[in-house]
Amino acid sequence: MLSVTIIGAGNVATHLYKALNKAENVSVLQWYNRNLDAITSYQNDLVITDNLNDLKQVDVYIIAVSDDVIGALSSKLPFTEKLVVHTSGSVSLHDLDKKNIRGVLYPLQTFTKDADIDFTEVPICIEIENKAYLQTLKNLSEALGCKHYRVNSDQRAALHLAAVFVNNFTNQLYRIGHEITESKSVEFDILKPLIKETARKIETLSPYMAQTGPAKRGDKKTIKKHLRTLDKDIHKEIYELLTKSIKQTHGKKL
Amino acid sequence: MLSVTIIGAGNVATHLYKALNKAENVSVLQWYNRNLDAITSYQNDLVITDNLNDLKQVDVYIIAVSDDVIGALSSKLPFTEKLVVHTSGSVSLHDLDKKNIRGVLYPLQTFTKDADIDFTEVPICIEIENKAYLQTLKNLSEALGCKHYRVNSDQRAALHLAAVFVNNFTNQLYRIGHEITESKSVEFDILKPLIKETARKIETLSPYMAQTGPAKRGDKKTIKKHLRTLDKDIHKEIYELLTKSIKQTHGKKL
Repeated sequence: MLSVTIIGAGNVATHLYKALNKAENVSVLQWYNRNLDAITSYQNDLVITDNLNDLKQVDVYIIAVSDDVIGALSSKLPFTEKLVVHTSGSVSLHDLDKKNIRGVLYPLQTFTKDADIDFTEVPICIEIENKAYLQTLKNLSEALGCKHYRVNSDQRAALHLAAVFVNNFTNQLYRIGHEITESKSVEFDILKPLIKETARKIETLSPYMAQTGPAKRGDKKTIKKHLRTLDKDIHKEIYELLTKSIKQTHGKKL
Repeated sequence: MLSVTIIGAGNVATHLYKALNKAENVSVLQWYNRNLDAITSYQNDLVITDNLNDLKQVDVYIIAVSDDVIGALSSKLPFTEKLVVHTSGSVSLHDLDKKNIRGVLYPLQTFTKDADIDFTEVPICIEIENKAYLQTLKNLSEALGCKHYRVNSDQRAALHLAAVFVNNFTNQLYRIGHEITESKSVEFDILKPLIKETARKIETLSPYMAQTGPAKRGDKKTIKKHLRTLDKDIHKEIYELLTKSIKQTHGKKL
């Protein structure tokens, strides 16, 4: 049985608690948050605390707080030589205080506060300072039902950066699609099957092979028509820049 | 029973033929293509021809050819006052020769040559010159199992433009994600569940509500780190422009 303490009460912390609480072979012993209000609703299920000095000995301490405060919080932990991991995509392993054994459990997924997360669809990127503890983090990931991948710091940084492109920026393209359809009073819903299929396609095709459309074809007439139709300057700029990027990728003359 | 003739042998024409051929209440009588080779494999299933003068009388003629040649081809049809539709997102209804009753059946989906299409996931945008024929196009869409939406020309143009953003441009962001992960020898596959969830999320949330990440949070430190990490100038430009766009949408100071 792996004993765990959760530190923090944001989206990731809460989803992790819920999933670990259901997992076999894992026991969440304590949940710490600076502000108890955020976790009082769980006080019948486990020991909650707002005092770091109350933390009992467990196998893994999971720090799931804002990137900015991970380092400071790890320094305040009143123990040494225990396994302490954070869950951030962009914070260095070395930001954790070196008095403990440092690791990262980065769940590469988008977490929405109220929606349940299916952890079997969450890849966990594992980084660990001391190889002797790798198996512990693998066991924890498996208890959650997650696929896990061992990565180094550079690889985790690359994944976090790539995630901004495929998640945040993609979502902004959906938003622009929404603005364009709304401006002509046509339902954005009509685009949803296309959005779904675009994501589904790359399960079997590389994004390179999956590309279609006017930029890929070098269809100047349609590109001109689209640029004329766009009202907002920033939408025109995005259209031009991504068209240029597709042309570069597919070796079309600019 | 609705009788149909298909004109053209590209992706859309072929997928439409296969789906209409299976549909109840529809009979595909003839298939025309300029070059017979592309459709000879179907000659046991229906009458194929490369001669427009051989076309028999049917309820609907579906022109599914390249945008550039739709107009010219419609002029060559040796009959008048029949229902003739094209399937393009960007070609005007008025590009069709006015000697026939003009319409559009625009399937808003991405078609891959060899992959089967589930037409229940294909919204059909219907445009029709003469309202008396609207029901025919509705019946045809329903025979395919498609959801259909009546749109005007401006709305169809807006959908086609928005589709470039949510499909082609999104796919290019996947490509950039692929390049970033590859440059650090980390598997692109790790990003696939995130890509899937990003698309899934907007089934229930607006793209506005679904946004997360450093640009939305105004997290300058992470944005700077990401810009430093990117190797290619065009990736930096895309990062900066889409970050600016997200900030504009969510009212953050630039």
